Amino acid sequence: MQWDRARVLVTGGAGFLGSNLCLALAARGAKVAALDGFLFGGGANPANLEGSDVTLVREDIREVDLRTLCEGADVIFNLAAQTSHMGGQRDPLADIAVNAVAQVRLIQAAREAAPNAVVVHASTRQFYGRPIRLPVDETHPVAPPDANGVSKFAGEQYWMIEHRTAGRPVVSLRLTNCYGPRLRIRDARQTFLGIWIRCVLEGRPFEVWGGSQLRDMTYVDDVTDAFLRAASTPECYGHVYNLGGAPPASLTEIAEMTVAACPGASFTTREFPQDRAAIDIGSYHADDTAFRAATGWNAATPLAEGIARTLEWYRPRLAAYL
Amino acid sequence: MQWDRARVLVTGGAGFLGSNLCLALAARGAKVAALDGFLFGGGANPANLEGSDVTLVREDIREVDLRTLCEGADVIFNLAAQTSHMGGQRDPLADIAVNAVAQVRLIQAAREAAPNAVVVHASTRQFYGRPIRLPVDETHPVAPPDANGVSKFAGEQYWMIEHRTAGRPVVSLRLTNCYGPRLRIRDARQTFLGIWIRCVLEGRPFEVWGGSQLRDMTYVDDVTDAFLRAASTPECYGHVYNLGGAPPASLTEIAEMTVAACPGASFTTREFPQDRAAIDIGSYHADDTAFRAATGWNAATPLAEGIARTLEWYRPRLAAYL
Repeated sequence: MQWDRARVLVTGGAGFLGSNLCLALAARGAKVAALDGFLFGGGANPANLEGSDVTLVREDIREVDLRTLCEGADVIFNLAAQTSHMGGQRDPLADIAVNAVAQVRLIQAAREAAPNAVVVHASTRQFYGRPIRLPVDETHPVAPPDANGVSKFAGEQYWMIEHRTAGRPVVSLRLTNCYGPRLRIRDARQTFLGIWIRCVLEGRPFEVWGGSQLRDMTYVDDVTDAFLRAASTPECYGHVYNLGGAPPASLTEIAEMTVAACPGASFTTREFPQDRAAIDIGSYHADDTAFRAATGWNAATPLAEGIARTLEWYRPRLAAYL
Repeated sequence: MQWDRARVLVTGGAGFLGSNLCLALAARGAKVAALDGFLFGGGANPANLEGSDVTLVREDIREVDLRTLCEGADVIFNLAAQTSHMGGQRDPLADIAVNAVAQVRLIQAAREAAPNAVVVHASTRQFYGRPIRLPVDETHPVAPPDANGVSKFAGEQYWMIEHRTAGRPVVSLRLTNCYGPRLRIRDARQTFLGIWIRCVLEGRPFEVWGGSQLRDMTYVDDVTDAFLRAASTPECYGHVYNLGGAPPASLTEIAEMTVAACPGASFTTREFPQDRAAIDIGSYHADDTAFRAATGWNAATPLAEGIARTLEWYRPRLAAYL
């Protein structure tokens, strides 16, 4: 893919992963439009795109004229979503409206206004549910543990059907826990590491819920690299891929690395809360052999280094993210 | 389950399977309310419930006050759906509105108005996609071939999550091609056998598309029996089950049985149409060992007998179904 002067639409473009991707695209000379509805409790932050050449379209994907938005796009990176698991349980109607119904509308709009655009869709490991084997490859059974898993699987599958029935080049990347600069750190809505970072930088102990669960955290620069490679690799079109990250570490180990990166930091451990236990997936790590083989991608950033870089990035910017 | 005087809600109750179930429940003394929106192109027919004690609520599940409707129900048989595969492809927004969004609303309404009701949900083999092995058991991968498969899987999964997070007794039955009295025979929208029956009774040859695809057809009385047993078997709660039918037969064999049941009938064979080939699932037959073991159920009606009974049933009633 030639990114210089490419016309790129990034939905969810003011969010954590979306904004990092927008900035990387703009740095490569692409003309980038970022759609973001700044959903309450979501990952969008005006600070994420400040001072960049990215055109921010501050509209809700459920209401915006998607046809006009898609017009002339060469590539669509589709990251707009309701991503909170507890949020989906509390308001499953809003969750399905964004994650599935709006996807159907986007597919129809793109069919009319950008029939040849490559689409890279941000999907999730969430709908595998509690893994029946580790690591989890793409043939692992789909068993959504919560409303958010249901809607995200539906949204992905609509895109894959569009590939099969209309020939659209589509790649879906099933992400695991991602972290790094521009993550929502105000609370635990985006990932547990967000609130840990906030606590550490505010000089307070953070809480680890449970502790033995394994996670393969992906640093955001590696996620961005994966999105760019997916769009640029025709061999990937029509496929879904798991993306993993650093070697699996327990939440306790991740907490210890976080403490090690910041003198004076500390944490406490508590039992996993009851209302979340019902939808908890336990340990997860991905088998991402297929995507690595197709693209040469690699989750290059070691976890300890990624955590240290993230803390350094937030230190002078903390106020904008609270 | 004590059916005498039980308060039962059947969504999609004026449709093919729904009306047969309503009549069986009424015959057992249940107080039955049938919700049906008479969707254009759907299976509902006013003739299906004529002369019965079933209370017909002629409202769209997307708009009706579901809370009032659920009030006091002991059992909810949930059959309302957009079931046409081509219909889902043509209007995926209407398809997801009925099959997934309305299900979320029904779940919320039932939580308030009928917190203890047993729910039996009508699901489908459709979302297994083109089988990677035969027969298909419940662990077969989910790979929806079309929009209808996406929305039906989402709807089922919302109900199963309601079981896991709220304790609701829920059983989901994944149906294969069903046939028998009260099937939509005006066209091929409900199943291929519908239009065959119409042609035969009108003295015209019917068309077989393809011919080698295997199907395990379930006669409607056996489907009704399965729904009643599912509601009555606490061991089933929280589970999804495949329902099969008669031993697998090819479309050509089914066509030959249909001709044999009606002197003078005939058929022609044509290639599978292009627009349907993209979402075709090829051969299918279910492994329904789990449901049989749990309930003692059995698809008792031989195919040739079921076809003959269906033709006999329609012969004096043809006008009401065209």
